[in-house]
Amino acid sequence: MADQDAQSPVGIEPPALPSIRWAGLPEGPAVVLLDQTRLPAEEVELLCTDVPALVRAIQTLAVRGAPLLGIAGAYGVALAAIRGDDMAEASGLLELARPTAVNLGYGVRRAAGAYWAALDRGEGARRAAAVALAEAEALHREDAEASRRMARYGLALLEELLPGGGHQLLTHCNSGALVSGGEGTAFAVALEAHRAGQLRRLWVDETRPLLQGARLTAYEAARNGMAYSLLTDNAAGSLFAAGEVDAVLIGADRIAADGSVANKVGSYPLAVLAQYHHVPFIVVAPTTTVDLQTPDGASIVVEQRPGREVTELTSSRIGVGGEAGGVPVAPLGTQAYNPAFDITPPELITAIVTEEGAVSPVTGVGLAELCARSSQVTIS
Amino acid sequence: MADQDAQSPVGIEPPALPSIRWAGLPEGPAVVLLDQTRLPAEEVELLCTDVPALVRAIQTLAVRGAPLLGIAGAYGVALAAIRGDDMAEASGLLELARPTAVNLGYGVRRAAGAYWAALDRGEGARRAAAVALAEAEALHREDAEASRRMARYGLALLEELLPGGGHQLLTHCNSGALVSGGEGTAFAVALEAHRAGQLRRLWVDETRPLLQGARLTAYEAARNGMAYSLLTDNAAGSLFAAGEVDAVLIGADRIAADGSVANKVGSYPLAVLAQYHHVPFIVVAPTTTVDLQTPDGASIVVEQRPGREVTELTSSRIGVGGEAGGVPVAPLGTQAYNPAFDITPPELITAIVTEEGAVSPVTGVGLAELCARSSQVTIS
Repeated sequence: MADQDAQSPVGIEPPALPSIRWAGLPEGPAVVLLDQTRLPAEEVELLCTDVPALVRAIQTLAVRGAPLLGIAGAYGVALAAIRGDDMAEASGLLELARPTAVNLGYGVRRAAGAYWAALDRGEGARRAAAVALAEAEALHREDAEASRRMARYGLALLEELLPGGGHQLLTHCNSGALVSGGEGTAFAVALEAHRAGQLRRLWVDETRPLLQGARLTAYEAARNGMAYSLLTDNAAGSLFAAGEVDAVLIGADRIAADGSVANKVGSYPLAVLAQYHHVPFIVVAPTTTVDLQTPDGASIVVEQRPGREVTELTSSRIGVGGEAGGVPVAPLGTQAYNPAFDITPPELITAIVTEEGAVSPVTGVGLAELCARSSQVTIS
Repeated sequence: MADQDAQSPVGIEPPALPSIRWAGLPEGPAVVLLDQTRLPAEEVELLCTDVPALVRAIQTLAVRGAPLLGIAGAYGVALAAIRGDDMAEASGLLELARPTAVNLGYGVRRAAGAYWAALDRGEGARRAAAVALAEAEALHREDAEASRRMARYGLALLEELLPGGGHQLLTHCNSGALVSGGEGTAFAVALEAHRAGQLRRLWVDETRPLLQGARLTAYEAARNGMAYSLLTDNAAGSLFAAGEVDAVLIGADRIAADGSVANKVGSYPLAVLAQYHHVPFIVVAPTTTVDLQTPDGASIVVEQRPGREVTELTSSRIGVGGEAGGVPVAPLGTQAYNPAFDITPPELITAIVTEEGAVSPVTGVGLAELCARSSQVTIS
């Protein structure tokens, strides 16, 4: 575990610690997470040695981001298998830790499926646990490869939509190395543009209430030496009006079969603004985020989070936050409406970029074709 | 000065202290402000005994809101006159303390005009100072009366646009008794609806970065016993999509001759969302906020505020904030884009409600007619 000085995030190096790693420690296995609640002030790893600890880390957002949740879920299954836990119970706890990101369930079911298949083949519990871990590691590798491919497809799409480069791209929430086994989804496209000398500026929405943009995307942008500016979510309108946004790039937590996209709350207003200003609105997510079992946006369950995330200011630097609560900013007793996600309908989305290519215009048929082409294991 | 317990804001009583008052203290005159930077945790008055102190209070937003800034500016002129300050210098300092709200300059010029006119009539400096104070007090009274009239016209408009009552109204920033000599502008309309039994819920945008919605509008709503819920600014999109917003009500800091409205940043995205969802978008402001000298939205100067309002969390409860800075949430060195206001063009505004009635659709001719009808003193 490494604590760092508060000044360290400014630099031109990638995050010093991986977002997630498996550790075969002498005292037993662990899923080791970069604790995202403490960024950017501190780079601290969080050891989860059992499933309840990992579920807590998922619910408190120490680990977050759709693809990374899938990897976390898969490692969690391996952890339970090696510990000899009740596998059905462990899988259920992990899968239900957060409701909206489809990847969490995907990762859990994929590792658990490998475990049960090994048992069915007559292999012992110990060997089945090793198979589950190997499946989690495979998902981890595949996700890193998917990031690379999304970045390339995304940049190609930008070149097609916005010839000439010098892009000013707006992003919301965090979708970089902190959500992925690789360099992320939407952020990876912006990073690819940066490396190709085609990024003029990344506009970073702070992303209330938990400030993933300010804390995490700004951290990743600074680490990678990208030109970026932070703004309150509601200042994006002024940038659109001034013609300072060439495209919006966001990730996704679940994509329904019709192309409706659940992503961090605030994505939908950006899509409406983008359409009003004739600016491309691009969603970047691996095919594992597409949920063909969910027919449309109305069928996506949106997680409602505690009101105190809105009524109180929290920060690891204030010395409060998380379970302990924060500093009240609204009158005591104030009720808050705090959905974690919103739904953007396909007609507001210019393109969905996956590791299998882009679909534009966004149609259910086009999405299904990309998913069918996917080399990732299909789990129903 | 009254400090109150942090629990006190929840109740059904109006604010215990006036937003602004003139005090003829034995040790000299003062403009006494309810310090809005410390709400809702503490109700503390701030004494300004000279113009630099008042300018500081304006710039740090201890006093804010377009109509109230006009009253503060007028009292500031009276203060300077009674103290025997250089009147041209004092007026200039006050008028330029913040650039966007037109009322500040209006209040300053109106009290200063009365002062200079008295001198021109051959009255002494002492008598001219009394005239300036009387003019400030008249503006204060007129503003309270304008609030009452806007509230009535606004409710009548809601009844016309949304027959049947049971309104769910969304508001942004703060536009109640804390911005006015009376009960405010947009908030006063919601309060009128509440008193008429026609308010189902007031949706309160928290209004980043300075949280005037969470700190001030929620405080006023709680004080008045209104049903309200707080939300992050970017969650408004989900409410529109769910059909839970019947109308948007906002105030204004400057209205150009063509009907373009400068208001707190985040107003314009709400206007775009409202149009997309066919929801009325209503601006409520006294005719003193209309600036017929400014032809259009592009001509309005938008104040850019320090980036640290975005890169740091501040709260009087954290023990930091204001000049002292706050708790960093973004990597050190992060640049922020932090406009205080945005501009909504007239085509996105359903109606502008003033104390002389409503103009709908919003046209320059209609606005000019309302202004010509205004009983308020015209100052050019």
